[in-house]
Amino acid sequence: GQLFKVAVLPGDGIGPEVMAEALKVLDAIEKRYDVKFERTHANVGGAGIDLEGRALPETTVNICKASDAILFGSVGGPKWETLPPDEQPERGALLPLRKIFGLYANLRPAIIFPSLTSASSLKEEVIAGGFDILVIRELTGGIYFSQPKGIDGEGRERVGVDTMRYSVPEIERIAHVAFQAARKRGKKVCSIDKANVLSTSVLWREIVINIAKEYPDVELSHMYVDNAAMQLVRWPKQFDVILCENMFGDILSDEAAMLTGSLGMLPSASLAEGTFGMYEPSGGSAPDIAGQGIANPIAQILSAGMMLRYSFGMVEAADAIDNAVARVLDEGYRTRDIYQEKAGEKLVNTKEIGDAIIANL
Amino acid sequence: GQLFKVAVLPGDGIGPEVMAEALKVLDAIEKRYDVKFERTHANVGGAGIDLEGRALPETTVNICKASDAILFGSVGGPKWETLPPDEQPERGALLPLRKIFGLYANLRPAIIFPSLTSASSLKEEVIAGGFDILVIRELTGGIYFSQPKGIDGEGRERVGVDTMRYSVPEIERIAHVAFQAARKRGKKVCSIDKANVLSTSVLWREIVINIAKEYPDVELSHMYVDNAAMQLVRWPKQFDVILCENMFGDILSDEAAMLTGSLGMLPSASLAEGTFGMYEPSGGSAPDIAGQGIANPIAQILSAGMMLRYSFGMVEAADAIDNAVARVLDEGYRTRDIYQEKAGEKLVNTKEIGDAIIANL
Ligand SMILES: CC(C)[C@H](C(=O)O)[C@@H](O)C(=O)O
Ligand SMILES: CC(C)[C@H](C(=O)O)[C@@H](O)C(=O)O
Repeated sequence: GQLFKVAVLPGDGIGPEVMAEALKVLDAIEKRYDVKFERTHANVGGAGIDLEGRALPETTVNICKASDAILFGSVGGPKWETLPPDEQPERGALLPLRKIFGLYANLRPAIIFPSLTSASSLKEEVIAGGFDILVIRELTGGIYFSQPKGIDGEGRERVGVDTMRYSVPEIERIAHVAFQAARKRGKKVCSIDKANVLSTSVLWREIVINIAKEYPDVELSHMYVDNAAMQLVRWPKQFDVILCENMFGDILSDEAAMLTGSLGMLPSASLAEGTFGMYEPSGGSAPDIAGQGIANPIAQILSAGMMLRYSFGMVEAADAIDNAVARVLDEGYRTRDIYQEKAGEKLVNTKEIGDAIIANL
Repeated sequence: GQLFKVAVLPGDGIGPEVMAEALKVLDAIEKRYDVKFERTHANVGGAGIDLEGRALPETTVNICKASDAILFGSVGGPKWETLPPDEQPERGALLPLRKIFGLYANLRPAIIFPSLTSASSLKEEVIAGGFDILVIRELTGGIYFSQPKGIDGEGRERVGVDTMRYSVPEIERIAHVAFQAARKRGKKVCSIDKANVLSTSVLWREIVINIAKEYPDVELSHMYVDNAAMQLVRWPKQFDVILCENMFGDILSDEAAMLTGSLGMLPSASLAEGTFGMYEPSGGSAPDIAGQGIANPIAQILSAGMMLRYSFGMVEAADAIDNAVARVLDEGYRTRDIYQEKAGEKLVNTKEIGDAIIANL
């Protein structure tokens, strides 16, 4: 049997509760497939700050380095909001993790499950039958990481500066990720840029067009970021894979996620070259409902599924998790965040929906 | 009587048709108020390229310089889409106009008229009663205009660079615009930034907090741009004035405009220090319906109203235009883009709705 090492970083708020369910699912996978997941827990985010003095403690980094993948919960909460921005749980953990592990490809599915369309703030006629968008966001370049960055000068003479920079290889490798993903789904890539204003976007568009030639079976289109922000609202079904640089991807993936109306359902993957990756729910740490056992663990469970698919090559087991989640939703199981008091719905807590998913594996 | 000089730049597509209606409204205002609008027409956008070789001909710039305000139509179309980005009608006209005339404050209202809520792709319950957001976008700084910007190197060694830079005075003056606008409306400013990642945003937030002290009657909040893209979709009514740097404002103002479902209804103002300003519809040149006399001229007419309000200090006349538009909508007049085949609706063309608005002045 195979052995995979998983760094488990539950984090803050609902992180530990929903992580517990994802780990139960990994247990169940071990029973059904010839595989073993060796898990090492580590502190991150607010938990890292409280227990080890920083959002991303060195022990945590070392545990991650000794692992084949990171399963990440969620971080942040009011307790740490007054810290300087780069010491805060979210930014202080996520940005260094991305950089240290070269997690350049962020995959953020925005899916409406047909049984949950009424949770969206979009009209029924706009989303009838659901939609399925995959935002692929470049995650280690652009205005997040380029130099110079900082505030120069004194008093009213101060000037703030950030730099957006992209090299050809950075664009090429993320474009490949998008085209390869599109091949396995709707065969369309919409590349987002602001080529009428940004030089990085002019280069971006040229390189994406070049790479597209290697994927003649995939249809490529281009859209300005402002128009994309509109088109997502107007008719989300027009999109299959959306390819973005770092900051545009930050904004559009969140907009797309909210359009589904079920943030607690969306997983994400951040991939390095090779098979290493970090997997985390798209939603936040929801401190308001933490500790009550009512949080929705589906995003965390689907994140574990993405880990099996992308880092461990366990496509069959990953499909089994996705299908089990879909069946449980079809059977009417609902945590509070997606409960709509409709006939056939069963209101359940975190553990109960986790158990139901495992029973359906 | 007062005399105001207006540079009239109809542009391409539906621009000339809808401009004709706005000019009829100015005629009607002349008859009712002791004022004269001296108008000089000039070419811009595709019309500038075709007739004078560039999107913003020098004669056009000179006419604008000799005027008290610019009334702008819309530019662009398939004919000019293969030109290099900075020669294209939109970018090639708008960016230089903003820079030459120092149009640093862009006001983009996103209003749902209560009688038109069904045009939005948002659910009735999310927008019941309409909403009224004013996006204030910094328009002459940030990543649009800062240096260095360009593509360096050769072949696969090339690197694209853009720079986002903000100085304290640039932030101060746009913050004042936002707080002053909020005072006249819902008394709330939500300032958008990405202070967890961008240095410009850290400075932006500090300065906005400082300026807020001069407006104790206005409530200030802060939101990260990714969260704002979500919150607009989730619950647009939470917003009054949204204050943004240039690129975030580009993206969020378009998202907010699309949420209203009636792009053809939204005007905008781009103001310089002093009273000079440029006024234009938020929508595009709609080449597909150009020349048919069916375009919706309301955004252009409301833009003329904003010109009276902000550049000419004619608040009463501006209110009269806004009210006339509201009444005409209440009476059921609809151009094709907002016609929904409901009882009481009258399908009319560009000229007819223009006449109805004038009759209601
Ligand atoms: C916390 C923040 C730095 C981060 C980002 O902007 O990338 C977050 O918004 C995300 O999208 O993962
Ligand atoms: C045409 C383009 C340069 C412009 C911008 O990005 O500012 C447009 O999108 C706008 O918002 O007025």
